[in-house]
Amino acid sequence: MKSLTVQDINAIINGDIVGQANLEITGLEHIQKANQHQATFIGNRKYAAMWNDSNAALAIVNDTISLEPGENRVLIKVKNADLAMAKLLDAFTPEPPHFESDIHPTAVIDASAKLGEGTKVGAGCYIGKDVVIGNGVVLYPNVTILDDTTIGDHTTVWSGTVIRERSVIGSYCIFHTNVSIGADGFGYRPSDDGRGLVKIPHIGNVVIGNGVEIGANTCVDRAKFSSTIIGDGCKIDNLVQIAHNCVLGRSCIMAGSSGLAGSVTLGDGVVIGGSASIKDHTTIHSGATIGAGSGVMNDVPAGKTVLGYPATDSREMLKQWVALRKLAR
Amino acid sequence: MKSLTVQDINAIINGDIVGQANLEITGLEHIQKANQHQATFIGNRKYAAMWNDSNAALAIVNDTISLEPGENRVLIKVKNADLAMAKLLDAFTPEPPHFESDIHPTAVIDASAKLGEGTKVGAGCYIGKDVVIGNGVVLYPNVTILDDTTIGDHTTVWSGTVIRERSVIGSYCIFHTNVSIGADGFGYRPSDDGRGLVKIPHIGNVVIGNGVEIGANTCVDRAKFSSTIIGDGCKIDNLVQIAHNCVLGRSCIMAGSSGLAGSVTLGDGVVIGGSASIKDHTTIHSGATIGAGSGVMNDVPAGKTVLGYPATDSREMLKQWVALRKLAR
Amino acid sequence: MKSLTVQDINAIINGDIVGQANLEITGLEHIQKANQHQATFIGNRKYAAMWNDSNAALAIVNDTISLEPGENRVLIKVKNADLAMAKLLDAFTPEPPHFESDIHPTAVIDASAKLGEGTKVGAGCYIGKDVVIGNGVVLYPNVTILDDTTIGDHTTVWSGTVIRERSVIGSYCIFHTNVSIGADGFGYRPSDDGRGLVKIPHIGNVVIGNGVEIGANTCVDRAKFSSTIIGDGCKIDNLVQIAHNCVLGRSCIMAGSSGLAGSVTLGDGVVIGGSASIKDHTTIHSGATIGAGSGVMNDVPAGKTVLGYPATDSREMLKQWVALRKLAR
Repeated sequence: MKSLTVQDINAIINGDIVGQANLEITGLEHIQKANQHQATFIGNRKYAAMWNDSNAALAIVNDTISLEPGENRVLIKVKNADLAMAKLLDAFTPEPPHFESDIHPTAVIDASAKLGEGTKVGAGCYIGKDVVIGNGVVLYPNVTILDDTTIGDHTTVWSGTVIRERSVIGSYCIFHTNVSIGADGFGYRPSDDGRGLVKIPHIGNVVIGNGVEIGANTCVDRAKFSSTIIGDGCKIDNLVQIAHNCVLGRSCIMAGSSGLAGSVTLGDGVVIGGSASIKDHTTIHSGATIGAGSGVMNDVPAGKTVLGYPATDSREMLKQWVALRKLAR
Repeated sequence: MKSLTVQDINAIINGDIVGQANLEITGLEHIQKANQHQATFIGNRKYAAMWNDSNAALAIVNDTISLEPGENRVLIKVKNADLAMAKLLDAFTPEPPHFESDIHPTAVIDASAKLGEGTKVGAGCYIGKDVVIGNGVVLYPNVTILDDTTIGDHTTVWSGTVIRERSVIGSYCIFHTNVSIGADGFGYRPSDDGRGLVKIPHIGNVVIGNGVEIGANTCVDRAKFSSTIIGDGCKIDNLVQIAHNCVLGRSCIMAGSSGLAGSVTLGDGVVIGGSASIKDHTTIHSGATIGAGSGVMNDVPAGKTVLGYPATDSREMLKQWVALRKLAR
Repeated sequence: MKSLTVQDINAIINGDIVGQANLEITGLEHIQKANQHQATFIGNRKYAAMWNDSNAALAIVNDTISLEPGENRVLIKVKNADLAMAKLLDAFTPEPPHFESDIHPTAVIDASAKLGEGTKVGAGCYIGKDVVIGNGVVLYPNVTILDDTTIGDHTTVWSGTVIRERSVIGSYCIFHTNVSIGADGFGYRPSDDGRGLVKIPHIGNVVIGNGVEIGANTCVDRAKFSSTIIGDGCKIDNLVQIAHNCVLGRSCIMAGSSGLAGSVTLGDGVVIGGSASIKDHTTIHSGATIGAGSGVMNDVPAGKTVLGYPATDSREMLKQWVALRKLAR
């Protein structure tokens, strides 16, 4: 367990200490659950009222809140307790899971694959023909990387994830557990006799930029031809569906259980709310926001916020909801 | 294949036998598909009308339905054919998949891990450093349990499931296939230069009570700090998203493809319908019900039923739907 | 890399060549990204306008569009550029991932299992007791097939997929990555003391026909008793939920993130749009279409298109949306 003094902590968050600077702090907890060796955060008056009954040794407090530390307890006053928290989480991050050896003897690595320096491969991993993996990559146990895939430096892939053949993955990416990259897109045509469906081959691939995070059990399908592309810095949550030939710009956010149908284009900095879904072949331009639960059926202009099913301008949709409520009375 | 006489069956369900008590029954089937060695269930008149054309040897029948068994066929009359069925399913449950040896030689188990008595570990499983597993636990092939996780007695984990480091899992739980427990929560802050997103470390964990069932490909994320908590007896269906820092009380039900955004609190006995989703930081109080497909944006009081998108009182929402239908005419 | 002359290509798509027939083509790309060895497709005037600035050597063009090839470039005029594309994708399909040996030495295969001729089993696969697998089946690395399952000829199963015990799988099926077949259905009854929930055993199985494709991270639950059935030629996208005792007819399509609750019946040729969900015990009759994002609460007659939440006749729903928009103004 890590341990930092109040003084160590303040060196990270640059606030004003009120109380003893040499107390030892071993972790972070909610104000109601913290013990006498832990620090907590007070970002609003609701939590301030709980300070006297809390066991926490230290609170990082917004400096707009007036509060006394009490006996043998400490406050650090900061401009923004939430930002201070984000920085302290780094300091208290525990060690990641242990690798007994860098390349576990049960991993199966094709003789033609190339692995960079300091790269770790866990038990039961499979790395296929002509795969090229950079430096400092971590593959946790039971990851599968199929042929001709390339992975940049310092990317982390958690257990159960499968990256299919010919994918191109950037550096400093994180793939959480049970992710599916590069499955065939969903495309069929009527059979010549009109009695069934014929699979359209998907011979493209998936290209993922740098600093991309892909949530657990999320799927990114390969392109019919050319590439499904996820731009640098995109952050994708769990259980998200990104269909074949989608193109995402830089730093887009897609929250849990949302989905893009085939050939959707996102500009830069697009935000897709949880459980929202987007029709195929539409474009969501840069800086647009899609409200949670929305069903988007048309292009969305840059910077606009849309909401609802079918999605429209968010203020317009709020008016519709109010109007319907009145109508029902 | 199991085989029970009509008399054996009646010893389980305590009904009244009409016909031969010594017929052998080898399984349960729908009335239209049953063969002459199988039993079926008649809970309403629709199925009663099919009895003459069915091949089933035995029907368990609600005693409010008047029906004759016919030649060489048997009825057992009971108060509640559905409940009788649930009890008979137990009696006809086949053997679970076979383990050639309790601990398969291809499983990789860190030397520091502790396994209880009668615990079985399938081929290709990985068990990390300082993991502690109780008695009678079953890990089917290709399960991954990362460091410092603890699992209580008699918990079953199906293939493909990944439980990440520092999770705390209770007794008598069932994790279905390809579940993801303990992936990082989805949290970012703007970078200092305002041009990108910085990952907020998630240093908390997941804590799951006793008797919890987690469906296939469902995700439960770890907390930012402190714990994401699932209370005793919760039943979670497939493809459900439970985000960081959610807290579920006892015996909550979440149906397929539903989702909780970050820091949602559920009381005890909350029921979330299929494909419903709940906004972050809201509280659904004990005994509340969320209708299928709803999008909940506000707290829900105890015992209340809400429905729709945006979700509101279910009777109010039904009125809105009726009003809109009239308006369109 | 494959290479075909323009003449070779035209032998596949039967169009009219305008320009040099002996140019070598190495692949297919979008008109804006193609290089001078690649072919592209022009199905409408928007793309025709990009031809002069494109580097592509060859365009397959709808014959209703008037266009000149230009110097050292070629056109092939066809009736339907999209259909021609689907056929060319076949011709340019790269080799699938490589198997160093048909049965990888790290695969664990129970002594009682039977494998057909030409079947390949990748590293880290598990095949349980009494499993029967046909000819020409491909199991990519880290697939799990549990006891008593049967798989027909020429079925492909991608990495991370788990097929639970007693499943019956047809021929020429494709299971993408991290699929879950045969997990227990989601069914509980109140405990006798009324204070909790008791699991209803699910002793049935999953039966999947021929030519079925199941998308990445999709779940098909086993039946309570009898079978969950997916008919021949059904095409299921990623992250789809198919609950216990559903019965799908022939050639149904379910798009990404859609879901069927328990005991839903689909006729033949039903189309379910993305993110749509269907209430338990309802029947969607043959040829019906469910619009994307819909929430279906009632049976849908044959051939009908429904839309919305709650779903209704699609023209009626469009009228409701228009009426609400007007009302809000």
